[in-house]
Amino acid sequence: MEKKSKNVINDKQAEILSSLKKLGTQIYNQLDNGVFPTINMPSRSTENIKYDPNHRQYVLGKKTVTRSARNIRHVKPFTQMAWAALFSNELTTHRKTSTLRDVYYSAQAYNMTFKNQQESNNIITDLETATGHAREEFHIFPEERSAVFGDLTIEYTVPGYEGKTLNLSAHPDGVLVGPALTTSKFIDTSADKVIAIEKGGLFTRFIEEKVHTKHKSILVLTSGQAPRQTRYFLRRLSDELKIPVYIFTDGDPWGMHIAMVIISGSANAAHLRNLNTPDAKWSGVWASDIVKYKLPSDPLDEVDIKRLHELQKDPRYQDDPLWQKEIKIFLKIKRKAELEAYARYGLTYIVDKYLPTKLV
Amino acid sequence: MEKKSKNVINDKQAEILSSLKKLGTQIYNQLDNGVFPTINMPSRSTENIKYDPNHRQYVLGKKTVTRSARNIRHVKPFTQMAWAALFSNELTTHRKTSTLRDVYYSAQAYNMTFKNQQESNNIITDLETATGHAREEFHIFPEERSAVFGDLTIEYTVPGYEGKTLNLSAHPDGVLVGPALTTSKFIDTSADKVIAIEKGGLFTRFIEEKVHTKHKSILVLTSGQAPRQTRYFLRRLSDELKIPVYIFTDGDPWGMHIAMVIISGSANAAHLRNLNTPDAKWSGVWASDIVKYKLPSDPLDEVDIKRLHELQKDPRYQDDPLWQKEIKIFLKIKRKAELEAYARYGLTYIVDKYLPTKLV
Repeated sequence: MEKKSKNVINDKQAEILSSLKKLGTQIYNQLDNGVFPTINMPSRSTENIKYDPNHRQYVLGKKTVTRSARNIRHVKPFTQMAWAALFSNELTTHRKTSTLRDVYYSAQAYNMTFKNQQESNNIITDLETATGHAREEFHIFPEERSAVFGDLTIEYTVPGYEGKTLNLSAHPDGVLVGPALTTSKFIDTSADKVIAIEKGGLFTRFIEEKVHTKHKSILVLTSGQAPRQTRYFLRRLSDELKIPVYIFTDGDPWGMHIAMVIISGSANAAHLRNLNTPDAKWSGVWASDIVKYKLPSDPLDEVDIKRLHELQKDPRYQDDPLWQKEIKIFLKIKRKAELEAYARYGLTYIVDKYLPTKLV
Repeated sequence: MEKKSKNVINDKQAEILSSLKKLGTQIYNQLDNGVFPTINMPSRSTENIKYDPNHRQYVLGKKTVTRSARNIRHVKPFTQMAWAALFSNELTTHRKTSTLRDVYYSAQAYNMTFKNQQESNNIITDLETATGHAREEFHIFPEERSAVFGDLTIEYTVPGYEGKTLNLSAHPDGVLVGPALTTSKFIDTSADKVIAIEKGGLFTRFIEEKVHTKHKSILVLTSGQAPRQTRYFLRRLSDELKIPVYIFTDGDPWGMHIAMVIISGSANAAHLRNLNTPDAKWSGVWASDIVKYKLPSDPLDEVDIKRLHELQKDPRYQDDPLWQKEIKIFLKIKRKAELEAYARYGLTYIVDKYLPTKLV
């Protein structure tokens, strides 16, 4: 990053930069004191990942690991992590975004080598674990993009757009959830709820049928499994606007789990907070909806059934009796149905009849 | 579609509705004349799909097929197609969008049965073939969403937004390419080129590095293989703004083919026009770029090599010596490289150094 742009550092950046500086200072101090530098962080090994019913997400236990420059096997990952911190510091200072893929290739510009992308991904996760900040805060964003639509006025903080505002209902196809949106300030909204939807066709239907005004809602398209920055965005909507989040997915184990990951996060992100929205609700399509609405459905296949048995034992599925009940019904009726199946009663049925019963 | 909204029919709608009316009138006239109704259309069988070097796309030959209500085997598809025309007429009149999946389920609201979605998809393709209009014109849109960013002011024609305008640089993450965008009027632009990019991370990089102003361009994110509506949108940008379109993909047979489908379309869409942009250019990553820039690369695997041999014989790859040359180099160096590989020379290299050499 040759170019030094004139930058006003905002509060969020300052917090992130300070966490990196802390890491760096620690290494420098150890060197000054004539000891081999070490980095301590919580262990991410399977036996140290625990479900925490209070946080309603996976968290890391008390086991820690130490990376020491004294240990010949640690020298490489130690150096790689120091480089990752340097690179993240540059990204954050200059507010340039990148992806995990970029990190892998960028290393070569610094004569830093990673065996493969898996190795560089792991080092970024180490950095997340050591600092407690998600890589998105270091400006390393996912490749995937999802979308949002509704009456929410945001104010950008990204270079070139500072202070500019946009109302997210400006474009009736929706706007992308990317770095500019997730780092924006929420200024004003008339919405009293958020509706997250798995599929693009339904997202467009909801906009056309004016769900955003009829049900005063901000609509979020997850495009299947919600990318991390979208989960972070949903959490911000929930925390900052203090409004409920309802999730609509296909009625099958995979749709159910899309909702669960939004609510309780994933084991992979046990070292992070703020990527899940514990108060969000899975609103459908439930197995019981398939029965109640006599929805056109398909038989569950073997993989679906295997998945349901896994979910039945998953600690995230123990909190709320809804999940266990619906899993049981899925296993009993052995059918699954898509959100679009409501079109069986006309295209607007899902909005006019189904939605009002679920937003309660 | 119970609700009859007050509608002003615009020119485009009128054209589509008239093509459906023509189909219906023909059936009614045949019935009035006491003959079994029939529908004639070009055959889409493999031997009737030909590459047309003038149109620079696949087209259908002179063979036709007839669906006759007299033939017992034709009665079902004939009726299904008449229903599809009715349903499309309703969607178009009320300007409601749907997806292929919706069509399948909606049929049940009319007691029309399809064995499976493949069957209803085929019937929609029949309707496209018989009328010469793409299903998107009948308001049946793909599930996939891609995105756009740049200085282009559009005026919406969708209900609730008629006459409203938006400049597509309003949201620096990009806005979705959906029904509202593809049916909008293009009002004003300072751009003198379009740059289509395969990947979300690069799309964001290009926006951050101000490619839209530095290179006066409209940026289009295809998110892998461009959805049909995005290909249609690119064609409109090329035709209506009369500016060149440059395509950047990963340097491998799959990336190359993403570019080719934008340029010359697919055999599946041989019955349609305006879904391809013959004058668009594949600008990289070329096999020769991998050599020239000493890009970090991976070995081609067996599937890649098999695919290159297929493409070598594909008629679409015969027009321009560039393709044959690059395929030969791929097969010689047996390596592939991603767009992100330029990060090897720093994150901004692709924009500062590589791009200017390609936009000529």
